[in-house]
This record gives sequence, structure tokens and C-alpha cells, in this order.
Amino acid sequence: FHFDSSRTVCTVMADWGKCLDFGVSIARQVVLDAFEAQKVVSLKTSPADLVTETDQGVENLLISAIKEKYPTHKFIGEESVAAGASPVLTDSPTWIIDPIDGTTNFVHRFPFVAISIAFAVNKQTEFGIVYSCMEDKLYRAQRGKGAFCNDIPLRTSGLEDITKALVVTEIGTERDDLSLSTLTSNIYRLLKIPIHGIRAVGTAAVDMCLVASAGADAYYHVGMHCWDIAASALIVSEAGGVVHDISGGKFDLMSRRVIAASSRTVARGIAQVVEAFPCERDDGLPDADQAIGALTQRDGHWVSNDFLKLPCDKPCGIVIESV
Amino acid sequence: FHFDSSRTVCTVMADWGKCLDFGVSIARQVVLDAFEAQKVVSLKTSPADLVTETDQGVENLLISAIKEKYPTHKFIGEESVAAGASPVLTDSPTWIIDPIDGTTNFVHRFPFVAISIAFAVNKQTEFGIVYSCMEDKLYRAQRGKGAFCNDIPLRTSGLEDITKALVVTEIGTERDDLSLSTLTSNIYRLLKIPIHGIRAVGTAAVDMCLVASAGADAYYHVGMHCWDIAASALIVSEAGGVVHDISGGKFDLMSRRVIAASSRTVARGIAQVVEAFPCERDDGLPDADQAIGALTQRDGHWVSNDFLKLPCDKPCGIVIESV
Repeated sequence: FHFDSSRTVCTVMADWGKCLDFGVSIARQVVLDAFEAQKVVSLKTSPADLVTETDQGVENLLISAIKEKYPTHKFIGEESVAAGASPVLTDSPTWIIDPIDGTTNFVHRFPFVAISIAFAVNKQTEFGIVYSCMEDKLYRAQRGKGAFCNDIPLRTSGLEDITKALVVTEIGTERDDLSLSTLTSNIYRLLKIPIHGIRAVGTAAVDMCLVASAGADAYYHVGMHCWDIAASALIVSEAGGVVHDISGGKFDLMSRRVIAASSRTVARGIAQVVEAFPCERDDGLPDADQAIGALTQRDGHWVSNDFLKLPCDKPCGIVIESV
Repeated sequence: FHFDSSRTVCTVMADWGKCLDFGVSIARQVVLDAFEAQKVVSLKTSPADLVTETDQGVENLLISAIKEKYPTHKFIGEESVAAGASPVLTDSPTWIIDPIDGTTNFVHRFPFVAISIAFAVNKQTEFGIVYSCMEDKLYRAQRGKGAFCNDIPLRTSGLEDITKALVVTEIGTERDDLSLSTLTSNIYRLLKIPIHGIRAVGTAAVDMCLVASAGADAYYHVGMHCWDIAASALIVSEAGGVVHDISGGKFDLMSRRVIAASSRTVARGIAQVVEAFPCERDDGLPDADQAIGALTQRDGHWVSNDFLKLPCDKPCGIVIESV
């Protein structure tokens, strides 16, 4: 396989399998090498959002390796964005990279840390790779070709009854009063449905892979970034799950809002009780449905208009496309 | 080693190491055998508190094996208590057993499930074993002889600064308004300290072993039972951590309230912001400090008088004894 680096507009349904194989090979090796190196901790935006030299090192190593093989490809990476790069997704082949999802876990040696690599062309995710390092589980999916964990095919639980759902979320990087009160009242309302329980393991990428592999029935969150979930959104979808905006509407990778679930019924049940708080989009663009201006305050919390418009007895939205 | 089964009053500082070895050997084997069997789900007290045939089967197998070797020993087991047995701890050698801690996880195949076996004589825990099955991690501690995971010595993080703490808790089996509002407001106040983050993996036994092995800096909870934490409380203590009542006072195994932490400072920091809700003791006894009558309502939440009396600038209580 030789990628024509002069070609920027890609053939429809091109087979990106070789890029996937390359991604898989570097994901595992680069991370394991990096974990041997000593960790040095500094502070990013909040006490819970730690960055390590390893984090930056892994991203640099991944991007260098990919650039050497695919010099025209674009990149959206957590650390590159932190350093000032633009996180706008174009039609060009683009690698979307989170070198360490679960940085706080990594610093604390809490046993869930993942590397997430997605590859999008024409703004559509072609494949996604999540390597959960401490578990040594390599999740991957290619559009239309299914999802796998260590080569075993994945299926979500398929659960339809939300009262039997085990739900994962994150607690949390936000510390302002509005975000925290929304986060805790969401937990309260979910438990009152009731559901079976709530878990939080500290990485959005792994949370969504747990949904894909039927270890949990749903994940919801506001505030994660596109690089945290680009890969795992495809993995959930290819495992038979649904991926929505937190309002129940159409999923938007750049909106920093998501529900991933075993079924539309469970996703709708969560969308009906969970409220969002304002959260700046990753690409900085305004959006009719998801910009802060489109949110409405209700009972002291911000909810999206999308949510308010959603009828309870109809399918709650559109799944992300999977062939 | 031959245990004199006619002896019920035990020599001070007897070496219970052979009982420990026996416990370790049956813990691993019985669980692995049982997990091969098909799971059959029924309901216990709440939708989140599931019981399986496996749960009852493992406890019966463990108790049969121990009874054959130590016919005079007593037992406190989750399933035996559910079937009507008295959970009162006497001075007799007593095995305190949770056949599957994390039953909801087990049903959902969420990757944390543990078996917990503690052994107490004269109401003092002599050894504790926690086998985290899906991780294949065997934690154990013997009083005065340290704590280990797969034979590697354990030390807590030793963290003193609560603003750098990663905290684990459970969310949760309770569904009444008072318990839920206390649970969510505790999360709110902890994040406002701030701390690094909160995790919930669904088993108290593993939560506390994460503290013992420095994967987390503290665990707090109200509502778990003595069989969930009898073993792991000793494991934390032997790993250099502290174990307190949630008020910051002295730990009471039967009170269903606990803070386990890397240091007294972190335990005190949590005790200062976390509030309890009324919770019937495991042994049904009234207790001046911990019975419902000893709690005071403040700002709409129940807090223990113990907590109210606690000065902020003094050590918050007494660690459980470890030689």
C-alpha cells in the first residue's frame, strides 16, 4: 500500500485499513515505551487536568511517525491544541489524537489510561483505535467493518430497559458552581429513574469502549474534547450502539457533548433527565443548537433547546452514520 | 499446623498464617470455578443490589470448605445474613465473607468484581484477603505483617495534601431522597475543595485496595456492610494508611461508615466536608455515636454529632490498630 501524498480529495469508500494497521502498531509501541520514562507533572487548566511530559512526548512521537509516512495528513491533537494549533476539522485526511486519555489516572496510577487515535476523511471517521494500556486491551473499529477488542468482535449489551442500565460518566474536570450543580443533579435524577448504578473510571475513551463491549450500557458527559471520543464514538457505533448529542439530537464531534448507549431507548431515557451546562465548542464555531446562546435556563440549570423540543415518545435523534 | 478445634478462646498473637494460606487457596479457586457457571439474576433489596446464584454458590462453597477444616469457627457472610443468620461479631474465631463484592458489576460484566474474606479473633481482624477476579490481583494482609498484592508489598501514596487527592466512592445502592441528596452534595463539596477527581468502580473491597496500593488516595462511603470492607480495612492499615469512621472518629466495622485514606490529614479533610445519612448498623445494636438518634440535621442533611464536635486543627481520630 502506497498512499499518494499529493492526493487530498479522497476516493469515496477508500480502504483506510493500512492506515489503521499502522495506527495500531504505533499506538501500542509508543505508549509502552513512553510509560517507561519518568513522569513529570505540571498543571494545565485545573487541578484535575494534569499534563505530564509523557503526554506531550507520546503525541510528538505519534505525529512524527505518522507525518513521516503520510506527510500531507492533518492532525488534531490535545497537546498541539494546548500549544496553540487550530482544532478545526477539514475534509483532508486528519488524525485526531489523544496521547493519554486519563492523565489524572496516569499521574495517580489509577488503573485506566488510554491512547486514542481516530482518522477522519471528509469529516467522517474512517477508523478509531483505543488502547487501554494498563488492561492491555486494544479496541479498534473501521467504518462499516465492525468493532473489536484484542481481535474479538464487540457488541453492546443491546439493553432497552433503562431501569436495568449501568451508566458511566466522568467526575470531573469542571469546578465552577453551575457545572458542578448540573453534574451532581444529573447523577441524582438518573439514580431516581432508577438505574442500576453509576461508575466513573476517569477516561472518556475507555468509558465508551465499556459501552461498546457491554460492560456498561451507556455513557454521557459534557466537557470532554473531540480527541477523547473521536475513536470510541465509531467503536460504539460499529458495535451496534448509538451515539447522540446529550440532548438526544444528532451527535456533533466538536460539541463536547455526548450520550453513547446500547440502544436508542436507553439514550432517550438519559437525554430526558440529564441536563447540559454551557461548554465552548472545540472548533470555536457558533452553532444554532449547541452554542451557549441556544441553551435555555430551566429550574436553575441550562438545558439545550434541542432537549426541550424532544418528544418523549419518538426516536430521540440520529445515530452517527455507520454502513 | 493443627488448629485445636475445641479451643474457642485464643492465645494472644497466635499465628493465623496457615488460616490465611488456606483462605487464599480457596478464594482464588472457588471464584474461578463459580464464574464458569451460568449466571442467574434475581432481585434483592433494590434494583442496584442484585444477587446471583453464583453469589450464593460461592459463599456456600467457601463456608463448607472452611467448616470442614475448622469446625468450630463462626461465620458472617452476606448471603447467610440475607437468609436470616445473625451478623453479630463475637470473640470466637470468625470468618467474614463477601462471596462477590460488586454483584451489579458481575451481572453487567463491568471489570471489577472481588471476593473478600476476613478473619477476626477477639473482634480484631487477624488477616484479610481480597481477590479482584477480573484483574487477577490477590490482595492480602496479616495483622502486623504488612499488605501485599500478588506478593508485592503495598504502600499507600502517603499523600498529605487533599487538593491533590484522587478519591473513590460508590454511586450507589441507595435510592431514597435523603441518601441521594447527601451522596450528591458530598461529591459537590469534595470537588469544590478542590480535589483531583472522583472515581467509582462498584466494589468497596477493590476501592479500599486501590487506596492501599496508591492508585487512589482515599475512599469514603456510607451504606456498605462489614463483609464488604473487613478484609480491605486491614489491607489499608497494613499498607500504612488510616481507616476512620466517616465522621473522622474511630472506625467501627459494624457501623457501615468508613473513610480510608493515605494519611490522617487527607482523612480529616474528607471528614470535614462529607456528611452521613442514617444507616442501620450491621449488628442491629444501638450506638451512642452512630445510631440514628445521634445524628443531627444541618442544612437539610444528617450529620453525626461526632463530626460536629471535630475540631479542624486536631488529628481527627484513631486509626484501627496495627502492630
